[in-house]
Amino acid sequence: MRINADRMHESLRELAQIGATPGGGVTRLALSREDRVARDLLRRWMEAARLRVRIDDFGNMTGRRAGTESGPAVVMASHIDSVRQGGCYDGAYGVLAALEVMRTLNDLGVTTTRPLELVNWTNEEGVRFEPAMLASGGVAGAFTPDYIYDRTDRDGIRFGDALDAIGYRGERSDRPGPIAAYLELHIEQGPVLEDAGHPVGIVEGIVGISWGEVVVEGHADHAGPSPMPLRRDALVAAARLIAGVDEIARTVEGAVGTVGRIAAEPNVINTIPGKVTMSVDFRHADHATLDTLFGSLERLGREVAAASGVTVRTQRFWTSEPTPFAAHVVEMVQAASDELGLSTRRVWSGAGHDAKYMQGVAPSAMIFARSVNGLSHCEQEFSTPEDLEAGANVLLRAALRLAGIEGERTTHKRG
Amino acid sequence: MRINADRMHESLRELAQIGATPGGGVTRLALSREDRVARDLLRRWMEAARLRVRIDDFGNMTGRRAGTESGPAVVMASHIDSVRQGGCYDGAYGVLAALEVMRTLNDLGVTTTRPLELVNWTNEEGVRFEPAMLASGGVAGAFTPDYIYDRTDRDGIRFGDALDAIGYRGERSDRPGPIAAYLELHIEQGPVLEDAGHPVGIVEGIVGISWGEVVVEGHADHAGPSPMPLRRDALVAAARLIAGVDEIARTVEGAVGTVGRIAAEPNVINTIPGKVTMSVDFRHADHATLDTLFGSLERLGREVAAASGVTVRTQRFWTSEPTPFAAHVVEMVQAASDELGLSTRRVWSGAGHDAKYMQGVAPSAMIFARSVNGLSHCEQEFSTPEDLEAGANVLLRAALRLAGIEGERTTHKRG
Repeated sequence: MRINADRMHESLRELAQIGATPGGGVTRLALSREDRVARDLLRRWMEAARLRVRIDDFGNMTGRRAGTESGPAVVMASHIDSVRQGGCYDGAYGVLAALEVMRTLNDLGVTTTRPLELVNWTNEEGVRFEPAMLASGGVAGAFTPDYIYDRTDRDGIRFGDALDAIGYRGERSDRPGPIAAYLELHIEQGPVLEDAGHPVGIVEGIVGISWGEVVVEGHADHAGPSPMPLRRDALVAAARLIAGVDEIARTVEGAVGTVGRIAAEPNVINTIPGKVTMSVDFRHADHATLDTLFGSLERLGREVAAASGVTVRTQRFWTSEPTPFAAHVVEMVQAASDELGLSTRRVWSGAGHDAKYMQGVAPSAMIFARSVNGLSHCEQEFSTPEDLEAGANVLLRAALRLAGIEGERTTHKRG
Repeated sequence: MRINADRMHESLRELAQIGATPGGGVTRLALSREDRVARDLLRRWMEAARLRVRIDDFGNMTGRRAGTESGPAVVMASHIDSVRQGGCYDGAYGVLAALEVMRTLNDLGVTTTRPLELVNWTNEEGVRFEPAMLASGGVAGAFTPDYIYDRTDRDGIRFGDALDAIGYRGERSDRPGPIAAYLELHIEQGPVLEDAGHPVGIVEGIVGISWGEVVVEGHADHAGPSPMPLRRDALVAAARLIAGVDEIARTVEGAVGTVGRIAAEPNVINTIPGKVTMSVDFRHADHATLDTLFGSLERLGREVAAASGVTVRTQRFWTSEPTPFAAHVVEMVQAASDELGLSTRRVWSGAGHDAKYMQGVAPSAMIFARSVNGLSHCEQEFSTPEDLEAGANVLLRAALRLAGIEGERTTHKRG
């Protein structure tokens, strides 16, 4: 059993015209006019696929395909909002591959045991309304409805008002689920699969992320008359910490560490920087390792301070806990890939996805499709048709394994 | 023979009230209302000291004390303009110590062989009108009058119009000089004398300064899904170059190297920096050494590029040549200090001064007075009354040695 790849690619192309940018990407911010047009198209496609469509109080769209049993559904989800000048596949691919699964089952006349649901989550990207994954977080109880409705965009427009304006505010009782199992297919957004030569990744979880701010204070002096031994140069000290973050992360398997943001003061060519403020982003699948990474940075900060006469303050201000997915759902994805003869690799997602919140509600897993050059959130984002097809077939097979097919109850029971 | 320290300090206090800031410093930008008020006061003081005052076409103020001979004068000069929220002594000290030299000679009834001139240079700081040392550069022929008049401040006001507005545009024929020898007394603006425990520095020259821009380009990726070995992090590469500039300068006697300005792109917490642009400021007394310093940086840039998959472009865009002062004038300053029993040290100025341009016109040297904590261009700038007195006495004695005193022709001839 295989999806109709041509049909999926054609739908991807059609959706990508809504909010298309001159550079070949899309700008389709959450609850924008483009999002409404795209939602209207998606609704027509869902209805044409004979899904029962419902809209919940956050604008999440759910299309349900009945099973022979009522009760909890196997949910396939992603999002069709984008970042500014984003790619055509981020999010949209997961939604339209799920739609293609529904269409394929229709073509073949297959009825699953459990119901299937396709979900389009509102505001996954968090570009228009912060934070990201707002509506799945709402469904999972991480955010209250009032909190969600009161988020404002850069023009001061409230989420609640934007939702009303595009006509996509529904009922709380129409939220997705109840959920038996949750699957999210997405492009990788990184270079691991390409580097290792696998079309598909079996995602075992979403890494924990911990953010900190490092402030280095030295002394701002005239760059000319201050001999090297008498300096307290905050940027030279910061440079050791930037190199240190990189080295610390490299010594720990599976860790990444990034200094993404830096500001020096007074930041003029002929003055020794007196102060440097910079960010640190550490990620790892294990919470204790995040603690170790920050501990190593703090120790390095003390060493650098002692050696160079500056002060170093490291403040860890936000942590998103690691989210391991449900082992039996991950195994279903693995089995589906194996069945297709695909070369796969177990990976952890370094970026957040709605599956992070859903794992708190129902057993979940994700599937990654290889991305050329690992690009995402840019117009150059691209995955080959073959890889997109492979990922969608894994979604199809994994969903069938989780939902069961009438007459193949054993498959379902194995899950 | 000694200056009247109380009188000098009193004049310094009085001048510091013009443009005084709440934090104990001064803001007296060139050709501002405060500059005019300060000039008017200085002119009254010069006239009271029986100096013949003249104003030139750039607003430079010269007060001449006749010698027994006509012809070239020994010039003592500095400036009374300041940076924003600058200190009370930067510039003003050199002018008022020179005034005190004139007053002391009046008190003692001494007539020098050569004439003495006190000069207040316009716009030394370059804060209001770039570049710095504009008017001494004009006198030295480094800038044309039209270039100088057309400099504009941040409000678009021309130098020429600002000069007219405060009533200080004079005649080209009233420029300082001709100059037999040039002396400039200044606070050190650095920590060398304090660190070494000397009240006075004998300045042998002004270092060469060479500025460059370094651009590091890597690849901006999502901080999460990019494993460490696959990254091309421009900031990690830049950190090696920042440390490298520091190390390169430390290995060369008398060199300083500074990365003062840095900008990372996109400069957000969860994206690997794809591009870093930063400045480099190298200074040394010797031009060939400046070339060596930049050569070392370029070599390091190639190594870092090769090792980390980024590109590094280093562009050296501006050089101010080293300016050694006239040996016989430096020796006069040394002899004057020795005569006073002062502990001194030979130093090079790491910052620019009007003496840089004057050395191209006449034999020149500078005298530094120790600065507490080496501070300058800030309200906390401070030198003790004792050190200011010591520096002024060196100026007095050095000027007398260069100008000669009637009946002590041998001293003069030695110069």
